[in-house]
Amino acid sequence: MKNKKHPKKIYLNENEMPRAWYNIMADMKNKPLPPLHPATKKPVGPEDLAPLFPMELIKQEVSTEKFIEIPEEVLEIYKIWRPSPLIRAYGLEKALDTPAKIYYKYEGVSPAGSHKPNTAVPQAYYNYKEGVKKITTETGAGQWGSALSYATQLFGIELQVFMVKVSYHQKPYRKTMMRLWNADVVPSPSPLTEVGRKILEEDPENPGSLGIAISEAVEMAVKDPHTKYALGSVLNHVLLHQTVIGLEAKKQMEKVDAYPDVIIGCFGGGSNFAGISFPFLEDKLLKDQKMRVIAVEPESCPKLTRGQFRYDFGDSVGMTPLIPMFTLGHTFMPPSIHAGGLRYHGAGAIVSQLLKDDIIEASAVHQNESFQAGRLFAQAEGIIPAPESTHAIAQTIREALQAKEEGLEKTILFNLSGHGHLDLGAYEQFLEGKTQDYSVTDEQISKNLKVLDHMQIPKI
Amino acid sequence: MKNKKHPKKIYLNENEMPRAWYNIMADMKNKPLPPLHPATKKPVGPEDLAPLFPMELIKQEVSTEKFIEIPEEVLEIYKIWRPSPLIRAYGLEKALDTPAKIYYKYEGVSPAGSHKPNTAVPQAYYNYKEGVKKITTETGAGQWGSALSYATQLFGIELQVFMVKVSYHQKPYRKTMMRLWNADVVPSPSPLTEVGRKILEEDPENPGSLGIAISEAVEMAVKDPHTKYALGSVLNHVLLHQTVIGLEAKKQMEKVDAYPDVIIGCFGGGSNFAGISFPFLEDKLLKDQKMRVIAVEPESCPKLTRGQFRYDFGDSVGMTPLIPMFTLGHTFMPPSIHAGGLRYHGAGAIVSQLLKDDIIEASAVHQNESFQAGRLFAQAEGIIPAPESTHAIAQTIREALQAKEEGLEKTILFNLSGHGHLDLGAYEQFLEGKTQDYSVTDEQISKNLKVLDHMQIPKI
Repeated sequence: MKNKKHPKKIYLNENEMPRAWYNIMADMKNKPLPPLHPATKKPVGPEDLAPLFPMELIKQEVSTEKFIEIPEEVLEIYKIWRPSPLIRAYGLEKALDTPAKIYYKYEGVSPAGSHKPNTAVPQAYYNYKEGVKKITTETGAGQWGSALSYATQLFGIELQVFMVKVSYHQKPYRKTMMRLWNADVVPSPSPLTEVGRKILEEDPENPGSLGIAISEAVEMAVKDPHTKYALGSVLNHVLLHQTVIGLEAKKQMEKVDAYPDVIIGCFGGGSNFAGISFPFLEDKLLKDQKMRVIAVEPESCPKLTRGQFRYDFGDSVGMTPLIPMFTLGHTFMPPSIHAGGLRYHGAGAIVSQLLKDDIIEASAVHQNESFQAGRLFAQAEGIIPAPESTHAIAQTIREALQAKEEGLEKTILFNLSGHGHLDLGAYEQFLEGKTQDYSVTDEQISKNLKVLDHMQIPKI
Repeated sequence: MKNKKHPKKIYLNENEMPRAWYNIMADMKNKPLPPLHPATKKPVGPEDLAPLFPMELIKQEVSTEKFIEIPEEVLEIYKIWRPSPLIRAYGLEKALDTPAKIYYKYEGVSPAGSHKPNTAVPQAYYNYKEGVKKITTETGAGQWGSALSYATQLFGIELQVFMVKVSYHQKPYRKTMMRLWNADVVPSPSPLTEVGRKILEEDPENPGSLGIAISEAVEMAVKDPHTKYALGSVLNHVLLHQTVIGLEAKKQMEKVDAYPDVIIGCFGGGSNFAGISFPFLEDKLLKDQKMRVIAVEPESCPKLTRGQFRYDFGDSVGMTPLIPMFTLGHTFMPPSIHAGGLRYHGAGAIVSQLLKDDIIEASAVHQNESFQAGRLFAQAEGIIPAPESTHAIAQTIREALQAKEEGLEKTILFNLSGHGHLDLGAYEQFLEGKTQDYSVTDEQISKNLKVLDHMQIPKI
């Protein structure tokens, strides 16, 4: 075994936990453009969002304060799984025979098994503080739905989850997890909303989609003043809450006198990527620290590497405000890869602006490369990663092998956003050689982007 | 929230890890009786076990040395998930409104998600050191098989797992986990052994049983001098390795000036129970420390509370040495509860002797009480426990509610032996009201014990 200068796992004490989230907006030279109202094409104001979110979250959404205090009640709940460990990947380094030093932050220790509870808990808390009795949300494979279920039951808030019908039936275990945490989970389209009833009338066998589920959740929230809606990625306040990951990681790396040359996160809507990287990016923005920060997306949903920077809807049916984002067009339907959390057409506004300004970079990985990385990681490090997280591992391996070729002792940090205990069916497909590498043609992308032109959505 | 004197989670540094396992045999006034050869009824010697186990494990099996050093290589691997956290159950205490202080040691952080890797790793290591190229084992639902798969691939040892056929098909995800860790998993009965071929010839649809799987694994090991066999519970050396749990817990409780009045572990063959309790029992055996230690079994498999203390086979087909144990008879077939790891007819020799001598006690819990405890725990503490572990939680809740009734501030420590991420199907059954409370009649027990009389197996 390798001679070690420091421990395998680096913990913080609970009294060393960050007491405020880091808001990167404060340090960005070019702030993201404002979201626009889809009808008026004018910037949306707080009053437009008030039917959906509690006022504190709306404030955070537009805040340019550098630090936003974490409420004491949220900190107490964070202690159930935070601070999460920072782990030196000695096993992976050995397997790759690389001079690179690899670290990962492990968010799979949370109740729902991913980084999602980092924002679910404060979102539930602020709703609770403002007297909200019920929250609605949508979920695909169930990661976000289970995180929010955990959080809402802690505050005695009722939760209605609209789960995409095909996932509801194909992936029953996340549904069970939500039910254990008291959520009411229905397959979407459902008879609970007008949107749902209309779709079911036309096609009782409709398999559902994330777009339909969002429509149902939003409709239910808007119709009742005591009911709000919650989202698990993309929005600024969601990314803000996730910075607790990077803030901890920074302190943990300090403890072993390390600093990353490369930071890597997988990319769906941007929340775990922002979580690990933003607190380090502060040093790049303010102190010109040399550092590469890489967002890793699937080749089958390449909005960062092949999409366009322009206004687009956050959802796939066109109900939300228009967000300035790298997008494949909200009508783009990504192939059915197992990393469901990365199948999203666009990127959050802040991350899009950072990419536009060359402060971060992006790369894309095929499905089989990501599962190969996941298997190697499970063998070398003992943790079976979520299919989403394997994208970050795959990029880490690329960087580590390049370091070996160049004989460079660079330090790599990546975010292991979740465990894959509920994704073993996907790994079985991979072991059986049944996972495909899907490619997207330029025609597919331009066809979907043209839809935006036809809709006269403003360009940037 | 409750005012806290110490943190939610108590960690040890890696340099505070125990460097030796604790062998309770050294401190027992009444040592367990020796295992007997089933044919000669004479105590078995090392030469009888040599075809199955490496010599170092055979030595540990009969050792009365108080401490047995943990090899450096094993310690390095332990660091992948150890020291495991000791957690103060503030959430559960609040939910129960109890004056009791509840602590739990969480073993679900290991690669396979339970305490099993604590012994799988040293077992693989000692085999590796003695040049063993291949190991065989049996597994039911797959907890042990997955732990051993993880361990053997670290040392480049081939692993053949015989998985009970009905579980192989009903619970495919543990199989996937084993395959990710390079094990060859076959449904048992299999065509790989004489035993298997004979059974398949008579009944190609035979669903298999743990007894058949053991027979296959043992046959394959005995026939090849480079192949050994490994067992995940019951035997003394297995319990020995698990004491790393209690040794850590003892140091962790010292850090917050606490000491348990009651220690609780669920009980299948005895390994997680021994792991948490033996290092504390040292104080009871040597210093007359007042402390209750409770082994919790399912009502549907009540060997400790309603079985007989006598010699019996370790397996259900009668191939192993005779072990002095509390048993329901090796022919006893427990009802199909979801806590598969607790469906075992007997108890290990050391634990049986301790129960016989009133040093420990036992209790039994019905299936629905255990799942109710599991649900409450998931809500209050954020961790979904394995169905086996919920038995320890149910007993903890009983004790905490009694403390409340009596107004006593007692300190309870239990072992949370594993997570339930691969058992959500069982929780779904519970939420649907489909889990049954199985009772065992006195007639069933005495009928199976009479088989032992007929076989002229020596009484104690």
